[in-house]
Amino acid sequence: MSSLPRPIGNRRTEPVFKTLLVANRGEIALRVVRTCREMGIRTVVAHSTVDKESAAVLAADEAVQIGPGAAKHSYLYPPALIEVALRTGAEAVHPGYGFLSEDPDFAEICVSNGLAFVGPRPEVMARLGDKSLARRLMSEAGLPLLPGTTKPVNGSAEVLAEARRIGLPLIIKASAGGGGRGMAIVREWAELLPTYRSTRATARAVFGDERVYLERFWQNARHVEIQLLADEHGNVVCLGERDCSVQRRHQKLVEESPAPGLAAGLSGILAEATARGARAVGYTGAGTFEFLVSGEEAAFMEVNSRIQVEHPVTEMVTGIDLVREQILVAAGLPLSLRQEDVKPRGVAVECRINAEDPSRNFAPCPGKLVEFSPPAGPFVRVDTHAYPGWRVPPDYDSLLAKVIVWAPDRAQALARMDRALAEFRIGGPGIHTTRDALREIIRNPSFREGTHDTSLLERMADVSVTSAS
Amino acid sequence: MSSLPRPIGNRRTEPVFKTLLVANRGEIALRVVRTCREMGIRTVVAHSTVDKESAAVLAADEAVQIGPGAAKHSYLYPPALIEVALRTGAEAVHPGYGFLSEDPDFAEICVSNGLAFVGPRPEVMARLGDKSLARRLMSEAGLPLLPGTTKPVNGSAEVLAEARRIGLPLIIKASAGGGGRGMAIVREWAELLPTYRSTRATARAVFGDERVYLERFWQNARHVEIQLLADEHGNVVCLGERDCSVQRRHQKLVEESPAPGLAAGLSGILAEATARGARAVGYTGAGTFEFLVSGEEAAFMEVNSRIQVEHPVTEMVTGIDLVREQILVAAGLPLSLRQEDVKPRGVAVECRINAEDPSRNFAPCPGKLVEFSPPAGPFVRVDTHAYPGWRVPPDYDSLLAKVIVWAPDRAQALARMDRALAEFRIGGPGIHTTRDALREIIRNPSFREGTHDTSLLERMADVSVTSAS
Repeated sequence: MSSLPRPIGNRRTEPVFKTLLVANRGEIALRVVRTCREMGIRTVVAHSTVDKESAAVLAADEAVQIGPGAAKHSYLYPPALIEVALRTGAEAVHPGYGFLSEDPDFAEICVSNGLAFVGPRPEVMARLGDKSLARRLMSEAGLPLLPGTTKPVNGSAEVLAEARRIGLPLIIKASAGGGGRGMAIVREWAELLPTYRSTRATARAVFGDERVYLERFWQNARHVEIQLLADEHGNVVCLGERDCSVQRRHQKLVEESPAPGLAAGLSGILAEATARGARAVGYTGAGTFEFLVSGEEAAFMEVNSRIQVEHPVTEMVTGIDLVREQILVAAGLPLSLRQEDVKPRGVAVECRINAEDPSRNFAPCPGKLVEFSPPAGPFVRVDTHAYPGWRVPPDYDSLLAKVIVWAPDRAQALARMDRALAEFRIGGPGIHTTRDALREIIRNPSFREGTHDTSLLERMADVSVTSAS
Repeated sequence: MSSLPRPIGNRRTEPVFKTLLVANRGEIALRVVRTCREMGIRTVVAHSTVDKESAAVLAADEAVQIGPGAAKHSYLYPPALIEVALRTGAEAVHPGYGFLSEDPDFAEICVSNGLAFVGPRPEVMARLGDKSLARRLMSEAGLPLLPGTTKPVNGSAEVLAEARRIGLPLIIKASAGGGGRGMAIVREWAELLPTYRSTRATARAVFGDERVYLERFWQNARHVEIQLLADEHGNVVCLGERDCSVQRRHQKLVEESPAPGLAAGLSGILAEATARGARAVGYTGAGTFEFLVSGEEAAFMEVNSRIQVEHPVTEMVTGIDLVREQILVAAGLPLSLRQEDVKPRGVAVECRINAEDPSRNFAPCPGKLVEFSPPAGPFVRVDTHAYPGWRVPPDYDSLLAKVIVWAPDRAQALARMDRALAEFRIGGPGIHTTRDALREIIRNPSFREGTHDTSLLERMADVSVTSAS
């Protein structure tokens, strides 16, 4: 393989893989199937019993049932996935997000079975998956960190000493955590040790790893992340930033690019830091470096070593199909673009429509979709695996659809999002969604001005009680 | 109003119109409703009895039934439309394409009733609607013409004399024609006078105007058109070209931008000619200048003084919402962009899915859609008014949906289109579509190479008999 980056649109007559196994479900599984089809790659979707009529399963070239609804016996069970991959002649495995996507052991098993894993090398994933180790590595690479510990803390005495050094408020995070789980904020000294113990217990229960570390908690901060692509030929490309400050219980609800009101030059500084960090650990594939931003200050938080839920925001402003680039890299090929080819245009915003009941503190509400009619029209994209008649299973996360819009500027993008959300018709017995809560966010004055931060939803307390879709 | 162009994304707190009447049906009516909603404009959709459950009617803020299925008593009946506009408090009328969109009398009636007509001034429409007069005006403005007559021809002697001057093959066109109707090619001298008489008869029957003119017919030519926007403040902006060479019976089936394999510099030359022609006639609003291209030569054909079916292709490469610009101009506002803001990116392709039966020479086949599941995913847009359960009426044209895709290059765009077409599920008793015929075109080697011309479908004769969706 040439180590020179190819221009966008290199034409190959043979697909880069003949067959690829999609080891995931929901909208991201369908998303991967679509790009594979455009690349001439045959897809096999491994699925649980409850997903046997999901859109990804219906769209795949081949679908294989691997286990029951419970993810630990299906989407989280490597032997079943590997068996299907080998039996169907797959040459590569795309893990999507969540489930096994950031599990270095699964990546290792794929590789040792001769399967290309669509993601970074297992040892790189392992180092980045240990969040306190990742902090230390990035600190060594010159990335700014929040005051905190670069190693797990152990025992009351150490916790107390480190907490005194860092100051309150601080946040206790599971070393093995991610996706907003296994973290707790400490605002009072009296909460410190009880919260330390409860977070450790949660970390042990959820991740099988009780190690936690401490980090200063910035009030009124923004969550800003840099999308990264890197290949095995030394090419590292940053695709601009996303702002994901609208969160509920550390779960992102609204994401956009570019980040509104970011201090001048900060996007470029974060991109340079990301590229430096990526080179330092030998990162390959698509990944995201997450930062906290407060005014002109920024601090590295963690790396997500996978495709993210919010990746379409970046696709809309850059025109780059991120899944396609992931697959090219997994095949050992160079990225199809260089940094100078990245010319972001306009503004993209994504809203996550979850099947949740706002009147019951956003508890998931599975059930049958009698009506499901997504919005459409200019510069509106909806990524979903649902359709009329689909039964939303209770077994997985509640993401039903992602509505992504693009416009030349943010005001038009928000007007378009409001139109698109209003147009989305979803209904069925017991079905509630976050749609109307999202419309309230989109219309919130602080959000519209772009002056909001991660505390927006706490300030909009009534969103959680007055809205139902 | 300031005569300075506003930057993209000017923010106004009041909508430019409070209420707008959509005087059309089908996908374009829904298209207009969507942009109006994003602009804060209330919409009224006037509709016939058979369209009372169409998606545009369901989406509108208000819907008013104006007459029976027969268009001459509804969509082509100005008194009913004007009455609804005045009664519902509409300040503007959007005529879509087809129907009354290029009828200067209707535009005049709107204006005389105090309604803003979304289109050029009536007198400009009248001059451009007379195709032989338009030829003369554009010739005077310095645009290249095909050899032909710049006035209508009348009587056998004049036809024969002019035809001798022009040479064969030539094409006889109705002065009042458009949309591919009222034109016939003459390849043999023996056909000349019979074809002259039959075209006149057709022109009289279809357009109520028997005048025809002659034009040299270029074999192996490409149909290339320039999208134009102009406002009342002297701003004229060209948004690049579209290639619409894939035609059946002068009806476009596939459109794309940029035009593949266009001679170097020709796009800019055509854009300059378009801007010159637009200024010469005082054009305002969105419009299209159509050209025939053969090698490095180009000749002006006609102006379409309305939004076109294929406008999304230009929207996808430029990021400009053409309907929004139309409405701004109709309100007397400047365009939101200048020529230097136009930075086309990548390649967009549109395929028209018609409800037609390829096994019966593409005869329209109305009926009930039991299944209707459009494709989606990255960079795929589907403009349609249909949905599951919708009954395709026999009264209008057979356009069911437009599939538009975008990609960084043409090879990826065609792969994406093929994927999207394959994903489109349409079915019902007696329902056939052009979907599979379009897939054959997309896969045709000459089309893929971009070396095709307007004779492609004649050469692909088997497309018309072997395909069914």
